[in-house]
Amino acid sequence: MIHSAVPQGPSTSGYAVAKSFTIAVDAMGGDHGVGVCVPAALAALECLPQLEVMLVGEPEALRLTLGDSANRFNGRLHVVPASQVVAMHEHPRDAVRHKKDSSMRVAIDQVKSGRAQACVSAGNTGALMATAHFVLKTLPGIERAAIMSVIPAEGGHTHMLDLGANAGATAVQLLQFGVMGSIVAGELTRLPRPRVGLLNIGAEDIKGHEIVQAAHRLLQASGLNYIGFIEGTDIFSGKVDVVVTDGFTGNVALKSMEGIAGLISLAMKQEFSRNIGRKLMALCARPALMAVRERFDPRRYNGASMVGLAGIVIKSHGGADRIAFTQAIRTAVREAEQDVPRRIVEVLRAQS
Amino acid sequence: MIHSAVPQGPSTSGYAVAKSFTIAVDAMGGDHGVGVCVPAALAALECLPQLEVMLVGEPEALRLTLGDSANRFNGRLHVVPASQVVAMHEHPRDAVRHKKDSSMRVAIDQVKSGRAQACVSAGNTGALMATAHFVLKTLPGIERAAIMSVIPAEGGHTHMLDLGANAGATAVQLLQFGVMGSIVAGELTRLPRPRVGLLNIGAEDIKGHEIVQAAHRLLQASGLNYIGFIEGTDIFSGKVDVVVTDGFTGNVALKSMEGIAGLISLAMKQEFSRNIGRKLMALCARPALMAVRERFDPRRYNGASMVGLAGIVIKSHGGADRIAFTQAIRTAVREAEQDVPRRIVEVLRAQS
Repeated sequence: MIHSAVPQGPSTSGYAVAKSFTIAVDAMGGDHGVGVCVPAALAALECLPQLEVMLVGEPEALRLTLGDSANRFNGRLHVVPASQVVAMHEHPRDAVRHKKDSSMRVAIDQVKSGRAQACVSAGNTGALMATAHFVLKTLPGIERAAIMSVIPAEGGHTHMLDLGANAGATAVQLLQFGVMGSIVAGELTRLPRPRVGLLNIGAEDIKGHEIVQAAHRLLQASGLNYIGFIEGTDIFSGKVDVVVTDGFTGNVALKSMEGIAGLISLAMKQEFSRNIGRKLMALCARPALMAVRERFDPRRYNGASMVGLAGIVIKSHGGADRIAFTQAIRTAVREAEQDVPRRIVEVLRAQS
Repeated sequence: MIHSAVPQGPSTSGYAVAKSFTIAVDAMGGDHGVGVCVPAALAALECLPQLEVMLVGEPEALRLTLGDSANRFNGRLHVVPASQVVAMHEHPRDAVRHKKDSSMRVAIDQVKSGRAQACVSAGNTGALMATAHFVLKTLPGIERAAIMSVIPAEGGHTHMLDLGANAGATAVQLLQFGVMGSIVAGELTRLPRPRVGLLNIGAEDIKGHEIVQAAHRLLQASGLNYIGFIEGTDIFSGKVDVVVTDGFTGNVALKSMEGIAGLISLAMKQEFSRNIGRKLMALCARPALMAVRERFDPRRYNGASMVGLAGIVIKSHGGADRIAFTQAIRTAVREAEQDVPRRIVEVLRAQS
């Protein structure tokens, strides 16, 4: 069973849609490379009959991992050769300059040429962002692309951007993040008017530095369903659908959440294994504990969008397992179905 | 039983120390005012025989709440009248200008005049910071005070600053936060060389914006036990004793942690009360669940220091209950024992 973070319409979960989508998968990326990316792609092909996948990577590694599976999907699975791999800690600039035949670059090239409608990579985030920027460029009217992800919240989930594509943001860029976030959240979750909040250190109008103050005024005048400043606690309160912040703050906040969630999980394990009595307790409580675990399973939320580029690029967590990487492919399919970049351009054009 | 976030030496937990400390308590501050501040002060007086408390507030309200308790402590409890109260959403500037006889202001005045060695308030953070700055000023060589708190981490806890005293920070200010954090963490937890980390969006030297890059170089040359850039997840990993960041990022990160911890707690409640079977599970698992809850009880970590001022000011959470506010008073006593402002001046002087 593959989890899905956002409610799925019939289009991605059954035979209702005839139109097919081709997703280019960087099969060499992430901590596990072909060992995870290939089985995840096969799982996605099983679930989504309208999906075609281009597996991009070293042909020999792909051949060995695929085995007989390559023939199972009636031509829906293609191997696209790439001779290089971008290392996880490679400098983004070096990746752009010296890895022109990397699996990451070739996967993005498929989107650029129109042979694929989206690409997915679990590789080095900085290199992916830099290469995607270099190859695809940003959409007209968008200064900077941003990383956007789904985050659990009370009663469901919310969308948050920028999670670290940039080390800062101007007021105009924060406005553009709000516009893009609103469109993606709206398209993916079928909300007519997603509520947009700007992250700040207090909810009062007087709070925060000059950039958030200026962005606040721009968002108020934007025509978005802007609810104003929100604080860190509000990310999870269910009062917003889109959380806008700069890439520095967003990245630190996201990783702080991951950190405290991990610490709570560790404390649970320790307390439930302290002695034999506690271990019995854990056994008794297992169904409830598993239910909680599942609600916060980061695999459900895998697949961050690099929004603002002239093409769909989905970043999977580097350590993603098969289930998580399949979820990232699903996210790519959903964005391809909605043609998110075209929608962003349309909305920006209508506003200007 | 009053929890204590940091290991306590004999000095705050018994009769070993003869020297007494006077703490001025803003008895009208916070969401609960005298209803919490007064019982908390009485509890602290019970536990700490070397403590004297000045309860600052409206004499009639204090008299009514205190009842007969006022006479129980052999002159260790004093009432200091103040005719005004700073509201929780009052503009800091208005509090400084128009509330010269507020309980908050008068409590800080006690520190300024030397009648108290520290003050504690659960009132409006912005007003407390502005008033404390105005009355006490920053220490020589310190540009800006910062809010610092203890945060749970693997194997114990860590210290983090700035949590929102400022809406940003220069590289020099981040360096100063590192120096102050190192001193406070060292004095309070008796660590000889606290490990200091600078929060960034990646651990590699190339990551982040210009300000963190410049602060990184200053910290490397500072003589502190600086371990370099850390990411949000590292706050909780036990690899640092002091987390340095600007007030915007720190505040958002802190509140994001609170938010996700609250959401996990809510999910636990929901899953353990879904039906009668689950409720029985909760009953079975109660000791382990309570142990986890206690480890993350925010009351254990109540009492943030406003470090960098020429006097000790402790900010309690506005919604603190008696136990939490007592913990904030304990923090004030510990800082007074160590004479933290004097130590900061000494270290800065030795460095220059």
